[in-house]
Amino acid sequence: MVASRRAFHQELKELQQEILRMGSLVEEAIANAISSLARQDVRVAEKVINGDQYIDDLELAIEDRCIKLIATQQPMAKDLRRISAAFKIITDLERMGDYSSDIAKVTLRIAGEPLIKPLIDIPRMAELAQKMVKESLDSYVTEDPGLAARLAASDDQVDHLHYQVFRELLTYMMEDPRTIKQATQLLFVCRYLERIADHATNIGERVIYLVTGDRKDLND
Amino acid sequence: MVASRRAFHQELKELQQEILRMGSLVEEAIANAISSLARQDVRVAEKVINGDQYIDDLELAIEDRCIKLIATQQPMAKDLRRISAAFKIITDLERMGDYSSDIAKVTLRIAGEPLIKPLIDIPRMAELAQKMVKESLDSYVTEDPGLAARLAASDDQVDHLHYQVFRELLTYMMEDPRTIKQATQLLFVCRYLERIADHATNIGERVIYLVTGDRKDLND
Repeated sequence: MVASRRAFHQELKELQQEILRMGSLVEEAIANAISSLARQDVRVAEKVINGDQYIDDLELAIEDRCIKLIATQQPMAKDLRRISAAFKIITDLERMGDYSSDIAKVTLRIAGEPLIKPLIDIPRMAELAQKMVKESLDSYVTEDPGLAARLAASDDQVDHLHYQVFRELLTYMMEDPRTIKQATQLLFVCRYLERIADHATNIGERVIYLVTGDRKDLND
Repeated sequence: MVASRRAFHQELKELQQEILRMGSLVEEAIANAISSLARQDVRVAEKVINGDQYIDDLELAIEDRCIKLIATQQPMAKDLRRISAAFKIITDLERMGDYSSDIAKVTLRIAGEPLIKPLIDIPRMAELAQKMVKESLDSYVTEDPGLAARLAASDDQVDHLHYQVFRELLTYMMEDPRTIKQATQLLFVCRYLERIADHATNIGERVIYLVTGDRKDLND
């Protein structure tokens, strides 16, 4: 029994390593997607879009690993909750990958046109979102509800920037209809980044539930 | 053993009933959100927004039920996959609820302004999306991979309408900048409906995996 528990913890550790790996790929996808947009680099955008398949595959592999772990080790109570947290966290990560790919698709859509404005707040949103992904996964692995709760502050910052960029882009469109096509695309980029931050916040909520048993809404 | 298996199947059935109930609420939320938008009915919009909490709570309750079912019945192989499918399906449903609430928020945002155009294609997209939610859950409960695969055709229809409405709204904005604010909001509504359809398609993919073991990408 002790040996099997040790085996379980070894497997859980490996599972967490895989999740961190998936998280790194997502962080990289966010960074590359935004850099492809800011520098209008079609090749980098295509790399992000093609790389999303890999993130999707990783989600499925980790999912299978979770199921096998449950089936063979039949964990109880907290260990079971650790695995079900993993099971949900990878769904959030997979969506973040999708959003990064959606951003890279915007790069392809507006490639060749000059940017209507230099991108400043959008990369800032992306940096914050990336940091949130990292911190949310750190809070999962270290089971630190304090770190998880602090995601709410970063999420507020992202929301604030979102609001600001949204208004700014609307002003551009109203002042010069030639900017409408691109500005619309940039509005979507903002929205995707805001969603990525929400998903990181979801992970934080899940960690808080795992550790404390409380269902907390960090988006409020 | 036979008795416990019967108990398990009873519990699984109840789990599926709960998922169908969550699905009905989501269908209703989509329908009400779009009707609030088309008729600029703020009261209905608020109902959708407040009702989302109920959908979220239901997700958590079903999740707990899944975990308890795994812990107490220790299902193997296919039964375990049935439950992990449930576990993921409710995540898709919860997101659809969020999108419905996002649509209702657009109603509040544009309330009082006359609509820039009568809404025809958007409600059509919503109807299709609603039908897809229903069919995806039917395919789960009846474990019918054929029904699940047919979701791809509806998803194509939604994508086609999305493309059409998107172009139309851009034209409105370019021809008359006074429409920009509202048209931008309607662009988001379209995007949300398209995402809801994607989530229903995800559920279909999951059913195909559950029944056949194949990972199929219905979005391609």
